[in-house]
Amino acid sequence: MRIRELSRRSGVAIPTIKYYLREGLLDAGQATAANQAEYDEAHLRRLRLIRALVEVGRVSISSARAVIDALGRDDIPPHDLLGIAHNAVAPTRRPDRDSDQWRAARRRAGDYVAERGWRVSPDAIGLDQLADTLAALESLHVTEMLNGLDAYAEAAQSIARVEVANVVARRDPVRMLELVVIGTVLGDALLDALRLLAHEHESAVQLGADRPGRPARPDAQPEIC
Amino acid sequence: MRIRELSRRSGVAIPTIKYYLREGLLDAGQATAANQAEYDEAHLRRLRLIRALVEVGRVSISSARAVIDALGRDDIPPHDLLGIAHNAVAPTRRPDRDSDQWRAARRRAGDYVAERGWRVSPDAIGLDQLADTLAALESLHVTEMLNGLDAYAEAAQSIARVEVANVVARRDPVRMLELVVIGTVLGDALLDALRLLAHEHESAVQLGADRPGRPARPDAQPEIC
Repeated sequence: MRIRELSRRSGVAIPTIKYYLREGLLDAGQATAANQAEYDEAHLRRLRLIRALVEVGRVSISSARAVIDALGRDDIPPHDLLGIAHNAVAPTRRPDRDSDQWRAARRRAGDYVAERGWRVSPDAIGLDQLADTLAALESLHVTEMLNGLDAYAEAAQSIARVEVANVVARRDPVRMLELVVIGTVLGDALLDALRLLAHEHESAVQLGADRPGRPARPDAQPEIC
Repeated sequence: MRIRELSRRSGVAIPTIKYYLREGLLDAGQATAANQAEYDEAHLRRLRLIRALVEVGRVSISSARAVIDALGRDDIPPHDLLGIAHNAVAPTRRPDRDSDQWRAARRRAGDYVAERGWRVSPDAIGLDQLADTLAALESLHVTEMLNGLDAYAEAAQSIARVEVANVVARRDPVRMLELVVIGTVLGDALLDALRLLAHEHESAVQLGADRPGRPARPDAQPEIC
């Protein structure tokens, strides 16, 4: 297909495609004339992955290139490929990680994951993020959440099990990576949205509001079931 | 206590406390001399809530004031107070919500929540956010996640149930709101971190890597249990 068709099918504007070509994220098409090239389905899949990385994952061009390069090597097993994609999408290091408090939280994060029997690299970015959150919860004295990590961990694992199974089922490495990137970013957004809604529902149930989103009548009585 | 002690116990710097006083987020202390005031435990709790809103929730001063003002009124039932806090912390409206595609996604979001029997206001911010994510997943053709919403919804509800119970158990409205704000923001961060770690674990399990975070040996065989 020509670049116009590639643009139409991928939803990526032609100038942006040309930019990705210049940056080496997308391989050049097959030249058919002095100023024309032909693209194929592999270009389309690659472009969708780039779009997932750059537009959805808000990954820098250099991080996107690291993922694309890893994809081109055949000595990296799928589990490590997914790790590379994950790390590219994960937020960058925050500045406040040099305190004793943070290092203590980091150790607790490692211990917690070990207790759960999770097979996780000792330098996983997720451990740093978990330590960030634990340190913040401690400084704010939110003991309920610190003591209730299991509820979060179980929910996270139940989702991760389904998500990884979906990734594995795609088989094709490019399409697997695409789902890792999209799944990480949009999965977070999906969960946040549903959690917000579930909060409203649970609040209505547990605080006995008589109608969603409306103030409960002052004389409202708890329902007797 | 004097302002120095209030600063030490709350972890909020004195100039920042003075700023909150000027902005009317924090009530003035009891004047004890021309240039001195005495603060009590209520000031400390309020300051922790402001800190949760502004520093953790990254809420604007005017949104924080809306939450604080609602807290001062005794005609707003707890369920609605939590809704006000939620809405203050929720991300602001994105620009791409005028398309037919988005409106269709918004209807699907409403239908989905109704199918689950969740008691949610028809104009809940979470429905808009859910529609954002559904529309993005559709434009990227991620059918696995679109067809697998239940896994996310169940995980979200299991966490929300615990979180709302924790909020209700605090009884004092200021401390309840504090936990809603912190819980919404840091709960998202906690879940994201644990999900990242659970992905690595599940990837190791499902793709049979022999060791966390290390490339599997090329000759590695699946374990036989």
